[in-house]
Amino acid sequence: MANQNIKPLKMGIIGVGVGATQIMPNMEEMPEIDLMAAADTNPLVREAFQNRFPEAHVFGSAEELCNDPEIEAVWVATPNALHCPHTVMVANSGKHVVSEKPMALNMHEAEAMVEAALANNVKLLCGHTLGFSPPVMEMRKIILSGELGPLKALNNWAFTDWMLQAREPDELDESLGGGVLYRQGPHQLDSLRLLGGGMVKTIRGTTGRWWPERNGVGYYSAFMEFEDGVTANVTNNGYGYSMTSDLTPWSDELGKGLILGYTHDERVEIREQLKSGSRDEFAAKHDLRIGSDHERRFWRETTSEIPPWKPA
Amino acid sequence: MANQNIKPLKMGIIGVGVGATQIMPNMEEMPEIDLMAAADTNPLVREAFQNRFPEAHVFGSAEELCNDPEIEAVWVATPNALHCPHTVMVANSGKHVVSEKPMALNMHEAEAMVEAALANNVKLLCGHTLGFSPPVMEMRKIILSGELGPLKALNNWAFTDWMLQAREPDELDESLGGGVLYRQGPHQLDSLRLLGGGMVKTIRGTTGRWWPERNGVGYYSAFMEFEDGVTANVTNNGYGYSMTSDLTPWSDELGKGLILGYTHDERVEIREQLKSGSRDEFAAKHDLRIGSDHERRFWRETTSEIPPWKPA
Repeated sequence: MANQNIKPLKMGIIGVGVGATQIMPNMEEMPEIDLMAAADTNPLVREAFQNRFPEAHVFGSAEELCNDPEIEAVWVATPNALHCPHTVMVANSGKHVVSEKPMALNMHEAEAMVEAALANNVKLLCGHTLGFSPPVMEMRKIILSGELGPLKALNNWAFTDWMLQAREPDELDESLGGGVLYRQGPHQLDSLRLLGGGMVKTIRGTTGRWWPERNGVGYYSAFMEFEDGVTANVTNNGYGYSMTSDLTPWSDELGKGLILGYTHDERVEIREQLKSGSRDEFAAKHDLRIGSDHERRFWRETTSEIPPWKPA
Repeated sequence: MANQNIKPLKMGIIGVGVGATQIMPNMEEMPEIDLMAAADTNPLVREAFQNRFPEAHVFGSAEELCNDPEIEAVWVATPNALHCPHTVMVANSGKHVVSEKPMALNMHEAEAMVEAALANNVKLLCGHTLGFSPPVMEMRKIILSGELGPLKALNNWAFTDWMLQAREPDELDESLGGGVLYRQGPHQLDSLRLLGGGMVKTIRGTTGRWWPERNGVGYYSAFMEFEDGVTANVTNNGYGYSMTSDLTPWSDELGKGLILGYTHDERVEIREQLKSGSRDEFAAKHDLRIGSDHERRFWRETTSEIPPWKPA
């Protein structure tokens, strides 16, 4: 559907982590985008990026990328605590900006980001969240059509093995935007707000830190009431040895819900390694980064047997 | 396991409705119980009961059954609004009493029932709830064993076609204990309290009346916090055209979760009949009562292929 006459947007990425590996394949497929630059503090990552994109500009800092006059828009995929400062920096450099979810750690940060975008007259987008996924878009379409009458209530459960997956310290530390509430909450809560129609009037809930070997929030559960009386019940359990995505669509168009796809035995083994402190997190994380076998096989070698998700 | 030397308890039932048809087969199987009497205001039901139990005492009112000096204990299975007055009447007649769930419509009624039992020195039991089912008992056993560490949170969803099933007016009228909160709530909430460890400190939730053709509560959802900090998230949706029991065990030992087992097409048709007012509720209800084909096939002709539920 792309207009072949448009001039591609020259984009850069700040922070080439595991999240970025999930976005790059889509960028590459879009003729509207020319992924031409990246910045990362990790030299191994920079090297892998350069190997894959030999003509790209590669930088060791966000500042250098912002100073590159050719880049028109930037995807900020750095750790959560850096979304605000990096977004403000990009906006101040006069480039359009996409901030990974969560947009910010608090309202103060979010407002600073909006103000920077307005002051510099650039576009600011928070992306991506589950709200953009085909199943959620389809639900929204059905709700807006009125075919089933007015929306009455929402229920959403996510059981994942998030706490078993390879984690860097900032991914667990709440003060840096770590834990499932900051890292998975945007997917669920933004989808529920998209489907429920906007503003939440009341919320009552809890967060749980249940494993000493993973000092962060791995569970939340809440009851929400929207302004129009619609209610939502939501649970996210990252301590699951199971994945609700085994039952229902989640994640991308290719149905690749199970990012890691541990077997039950692997899950038990990882937990034991976490308990005993013998798990090599750095290696486990590195195995998911750009340049790894996992990254190539899972994100780039599209299995053509899996058709794009369609409503039943 | 029954002691063959015990003298069977001579029991009567007040209210031989659809609920009672689910209990009688178990009573008949227990050598500890001699089901010897019933009372019901419906002459068709009395006739069917007498046909099945030719030697039983059959009465047209609760009073007459309470005056029968041979009966030692009574199962009160009348409509919810009568649980309190009938239980008090039974206790005052000096007989032990089991009240169907919900025990009462409010605390005032519950206290009157307890006081009547104490004053007459008889046993009072509220039965039955899902808490007695093998899957819930097994969960409780696992929790109490400490094998998985302390309990942290509970989540329970029930999607049923409760609002499509045959209903008498009192089953929908909230002032008479109708709707899913009074009629299905005891199953879920009692199980959650049994598993969660007792008293609930805070609760926030909602009820929903979503179909004009069924003027009663067909949905509830809540977030609860127990005294010890454990939380529970609970949803019951009686407007479902689906049954969560298709996925997980619910109901009796034989796995007979789907009491009616409507097909999708039947569900759609029933809803249309309810909307147009053409549904014959009386006939639909009668088809489930004692003496009906359904009652015989479903509750009494045990399908030996289905083994009793066991933990996986």
